[in-house]
Amino acid sequence: MRATIIHGRHDVRLEEVADPSIVADTDAIVRVVRSCVCGSDLHRYRGTISIDRPKPIGHEFVGVVEEAGREVKNVKPGDFVIAPFYICCGTCVNCRSGWTVNCLNVGWWGGGSDGNNSENAGQAEIVRVPQADGTLFVVDGGMPAEELLPGLLSLSDVMCTGHHAAVSAGVKQGSTVAVVGDGAVGLCGIIAAKRLGASRIVAMSRHADRQELAVEFGATDIIAERGEEGIAKLKALFSGIGPDAVLECVGSQESMDQALASARPGGQVGFVGVPAGGSIIAVRTLFDSNVGVRGGVATVRDYIGELLPDVLNETIQPGKVFTEAMPLDQVAEAYAAMDERRTIKAMLIP
Amino acid sequence: MRATIIHGRHDVRLEEVADPSIVADTDAIVRVVRSCVCGSDLHRYRGTISIDRPKPIGHEFVGVVEEAGREVKNVKPGDFVIAPFYICCGTCVNCRSGWTVNCLNVGWWGGGSDGNNSENAGQAEIVRVPQADGTLFVVDGGMPAEELLPGLLSLSDVMCTGHHAAVSAGVKQGSTVAVVGDGAVGLCGIIAAKRLGASRIVAMSRHADRQELAVEFGATDIIAERGEEGIAKLKALFSGIGPDAVLECVGSQESMDQALASARPGGQVGFVGVPAGGSIIAVRTLFDSNVGVRGGVATVRDYIGELLPDVLNETIQPGKVFTEAMPLDQVAEAYAAMDERRTIKAMLIP
Repeated sequence: MRATIIHGRHDVRLEEVADPSIVADTDAIVRVVRSCVCGSDLHRYRGTISIDRPKPIGHEFVGVVEEAGREVKNVKPGDFVIAPFYICCGTCVNCRSGWTVNCLNVGWWGGGSDGNNSENAGQAEIVRVPQADGTLFVVDGGMPAEELLPGLLSLSDVMCTGHHAAVSAGVKQGSTVAVVGDGAVGLCGIIAAKRLGASRIVAMSRHADRQELAVEFGATDIIAERGEEGIAKLKALFSGIGPDAVLECVGSQESMDQALASARPGGQVGFVGVPAGGSIIAVRTLFDSNVGVRGGVATVRDYIGELLPDVLNETIQPGKVFTEAMPLDQVAEAYAAMDERRTIKAMLIP
Repeated sequence: MRATIIHGRHDVRLEEVADPSIVADTDAIVRVVRSCVCGSDLHRYRGTISIDRPKPIGHEFVGVVEEAGREVKNVKPGDFVIAPFYICCGTCVNCRSGWTVNCLNVGWWGGGSDGNNSENAGQAEIVRVPQADGTLFVVDGGMPAEELLPGLLSLSDVMCTGHHAAVSAGVKQGSTVAVVGDGAVGLCGIIAAKRLGASRIVAMSRHADRQELAVEFGATDIIAERGEEGIAKLKALFSGIGPDAVLECVGSQESMDQALASARPGGQVGFVGVPAGGSIIAVRTLFDSNVGVRGGVATVRDYIGELLPDVLNETIQPGKVFTEAMPLDQVAEAYAAMDERRTIKAMLIP
């Protein structure tokens, strides 16, 4: 089969590799129907996170089960499944309490073959899925209509991550919200905030194409300015004190500082941006403002069930963040297009 | 009248000063019935926070209104009132949204006489209260029974601050809780956690007298160990992952680190300790664990109404944190006793 291998900075290649097969009785083999490139893949692509050896890459995919190990109970050949961006057992105390991303037996795609991890990754034709019962979410009814595939794919990471930002920020009916970051995650954060009942949603965005999608997804206001100027414009919209909730969907020190300075006293920042470069928060900043901070790596597997019906009936259309669809053999171009911001998010069709 | 003046390190004196009088039409004059020394007063007493000139001190008091300015509507002479540790207008957008501590016209006791602040402070016989309508909470029925005074006094700061820690940590029916810090605030955090329905409350405490009070207030377990050893013992009580909520009631880097490392994945730290020495939080720590952080300076004025009935009917007895009562002229001894940990909290009787 063919799989995407990252060799180093600006160097991803589609290569011929051995077909995966069942290793443990709890494995399943999934033929990928759609996968995509994540903003976090760009860290390795840009060299901001270094790799020690060529590695399979890609952690968002949907597909059809081809084979299931003898102990697998919840999935069977022919099932259409959504794979979250991590591997989880579904039975440990964290999984049982709704924090599968903090599974005590958590594993990663392309992370090796030590039982929890899979040596395969999502930007490929076939994937071995360890802990298949815990990891995979079955969509009833077999292969969905093609137009639903982008939305279903978004549930493997980006839509659920936007939802995690909104939930972490405490967004509820009537909340006022600002979203820092206009990438695919920020845009899904807008969808999530609207879905949770936000009364006003401000997108902090400088790019025309993203502003347009932000408004389509539910943003009521756009602020293009950054830093102090952006914060001042935002506060002016909300009695001079700022919105109830701020979704931090970037991951830099600047974006976190902006989010903390934007929320009203007693408000809340929900963050999902992978922290780059050792970002910190001064406790005094939180103390004086009573602004809370919650978030982290999104517990995607726990959210799929809640969001799936809205995707299937197209009440929400997170699939629109895929502004381009390409055959898998153009994966290098998909990375380049996202790196150069020529596309918001690229879907790959094996 | 007599008022406590702090002159410098280990130097507080009860001095004869001019009686305060109405300055603005929104002022009230309150004769103090009970006041006390706060752990945060010890920062100035110990010299960890320096003062630029001798200043009136004390920010927790209850008393009887002697006189009200012409524009004051909510309090009248003879009313028994609880004063929160700050001065607030009650009408700005933050006050209206339940964050009086972040009042846009916030003022402080002993902070001067610029309109928002009062040049008087609580460890005195009489206090001028600016913005009396917003600041003072009237207890119906005039002067309460003497045995209720300590509990009522605790609502001016310490009980409401413990409650803020518990609310900020998201404590609700069935929550599992740990409390870091066994001072008066931590002990009130235990009362608050129990009141909010916590199913299990672990007090991290090394002092026998405080352990005893912790258990009386609702602690189900005591852990005397600190640091890694304490965290390991705590996690062992909760399936190896830690409790849902951790109340950080100290304010040091060590206590914040301990709290963050103690909560289960997806749990929450509620903090109220005044941050000393520039404490920080690494965003990565929150990201990996999905532990949230909320808290800060407690919005006491907003909580008094909720907690007052339970104090009046003695369902909760936060007044027990006052392990000593002294006449006001022994204020220097009250500071020394708290500084040397000979008493948990000292009440002063003018």
